[in-house]
Amino acid sequence: MSSVTNDLSGMEQTRRRLAALYLPIAEDLEACEKIYRSELKSSVPFVQRLVDHAARFQGKRLRPTLLLITARACGGIRPIHHQLAAVVEMIHTASLVHDDILDEAMVRRHAATINVEWGNESAVLLGDYLFTHAFHLAASTGSTLACQWISRATNRVWEGEMAQNYHRGDLDLTESTYFDIIRGKTAELTAVSAGLGAYFAESEPQVVDSMESYGRNLGIAFQIVDDLLDILGDERNTGKSLGTDLDKLKLTLPLIRYLAQASPDEAASVKSLMTDTDHSTSRRKAIKTVVSQDGIIDDCWRTARDYVDAARQNLEVLEDSPAKAILSSMTEDVVKRAF
Amino acid sequence: MSSVTNDLSGMEQTRRRLAALYLPIAEDLEACEKIYRSELKSSVPFVQRLVDHAARFQGKRLRPTLLLITARACGGIRPIHHQLAAVVEMIHTASLVHDDILDEAMVRRHAATINVEWGNESAVLLGDYLFTHAFHLAASTGSTLACQWISRATNRVWEGEMAQNYHRGDLDLTESTYFDIIRGKTAELTAVSAGLGAYFAESEPQVVDSMESYGRNLGIAFQIVDDLLDILGDERNTGKSLGTDLDKLKLTLPLIRYLAQASPDEAASVKSLMTDTDHSTSRRKAIKTVVSQDGIIDDCWRTARDYVDAARQNLEVLEDSPAKAILSSMTEDVVKRAF
Repeated sequence: MSSVTNDLSGMEQTRRRLAALYLPIAEDLEACEKIYRSELKSSVPFVQRLVDHAARFQGKRLRPTLLLITARACGGIRPIHHQLAAVVEMIHTASLVHDDILDEAMVRRHAATINVEWGNESAVLLGDYLFTHAFHLAASTGSTLACQWISRATNRVWEGEMAQNYHRGDLDLTESTYFDIIRGKTAELTAVSAGLGAYFAESEPQVVDSMESYGRNLGIAFQIVDDLLDILGDERNTGKSLGTDLDKLKLTLPLIRYLAQASPDEAASVKSLMTDTDHSTSRRKAIKTVVSQDGIIDDCWRTARDYVDAARQNLEVLEDSPAKAILSSMTEDVVKRAF
Repeated sequence: MSSVTNDLSGMEQTRRRLAALYLPIAEDLEACEKIYRSELKSSVPFVQRLVDHAARFQGKRLRPTLLLITARACGGIRPIHHQLAAVVEMIHTASLVHDDILDEAMVRRHAATINVEWGNESAVLLGDYLFTHAFHLAASTGSTLACQWISRATNRVWEGEMAQNYHRGDLDLTESTYFDIIRGKTAELTAVSAGLGAYFAESEPQVVDSMESYGRNLGIAFQIVDDLLDILGDERNTGKSLGTDLDKLKLTLPLIRYLAQASPDEAASVKSLMTDTDHSTSRRKAIKTVVSQDGIIDDCWRTARDYVDAARQNLEVLEDSPAKAILSSMTEDVVKRAF
């Protein structure tokens, strides 16, 4: 599979947009980027090639941006914020590289996945390499608390991933388990990003808590939208393999809600569609048609919006500032997928 | 593939042997084991099953034993030593689980590998889970220096693994590159184990350096013996898939030395044997015959012994003690593969 080059990288899009809103954030993001690249510099050309390729998956830098803007909104940015922003992005990239092995995904951000281009072996190793460098960078901040916080968060991310893997093929997955899974695999890292931003800006404990909740609510909304796009989206726009949740028998919110209200016959028909390997190519289209009935899609968008509203309320503890305004607008961006 | 149960686990063998030599070490090892199990306790039954299964791969606990005995030999053991001993064992187990994916290995320590029993996906996730818990435990010691040391070591382990992966199929691999690879993938973790033992026993810097060198030399000897067994060993005794280095076109010391002294015709014949997939079943036997000529095997054992001798010399900085005597006897154990 050949790689397609973006006209403008996700990082550059985010940087330009933020620079227009509030210049210091764009500069913070550049400082984080510099640390990211310098930590991962390798003298082995093959390793460097994999690292460079994986950098293309990073996209719009949601997690470091969250950490840096929260720090600004909480009244003070310090060098440790730039380092920790690079750490959370590195952990996120590692999890994408390993996720693509699990999902047998072919394309991510318009580029071939590592597993497709260089094989599963290289993808396992590259993910581990990114992981260990993230912890090394965290340790080099000299803050044990940062190390503890980040390692606890990654434990939860992986517990979420393992629970998701375990429930693959479980067509009776409940909404409550679905939310447990996405709280771990997605929302824990956005929560810790905003929390670290606030903590190292020397915020009061209740502000740190509110910012963690903001990140968590934002992450949950983000994942619901991501799951909706897996069914509804267009591969050319999203730039990644779609329908992989369906192919891997991972139930997401629209299907869970459809099955919860369907008649036994309707449920049986969708379940047989899910498990029938002969229909894998037409599956996504058929599922799209089914869940588009009865207002289920609208209902899921509404749930995403509820989390976005909750995230906006979490910001009320903060004084007004340009950075706070950006955090507020990010809640909308998540639903519109500007992030 | 069914799992075969050992009469006596590797841990129990090591514990009994050490208890006979010097009781406190056996107690240290039990304390480490308790921390290991408690850190990895999961409320998700599937996760716990994978963790329990992977515990069977741990074998004879070379790395935690090294750390704990070095601490005793350097004059003082503290609770942080037990925690760090669990950390190095967790990192080692994570690397075994991921290694088995890379090697497509079927059996480890007489048990089916995770990838064979539960698939590559579970193996990727379990390795990551063990990794993140290792870093969490390291961070919870409260020592940033321990976190830095451990994360730097894991970076080097993974650089070694990636370099090995890159050089797969390179039938002109030099001895110098081979040693670079094993210094990373194996000897870095044994070096850091002995180094941490000495450092947290509040040893002088030159003692810490000597203990690191001891661990490094021991690790290199261990890997050379491991590579020899991949060609010469018996699967029933070693309890793991053998010949995987050959199948994966990874050159090890005996072959590197054979090729370096072979005539062009002999070299071409061995290289064609290596790359001919039709002969994979008889390959190991044929390679064994070839490298058993010209004293090459003896020569490799001699090199392993040279590293063992160097390791024994590194111990000269220590005062005599029962723990020092055990460190000294471990150098012999490595060559005899009691470890």
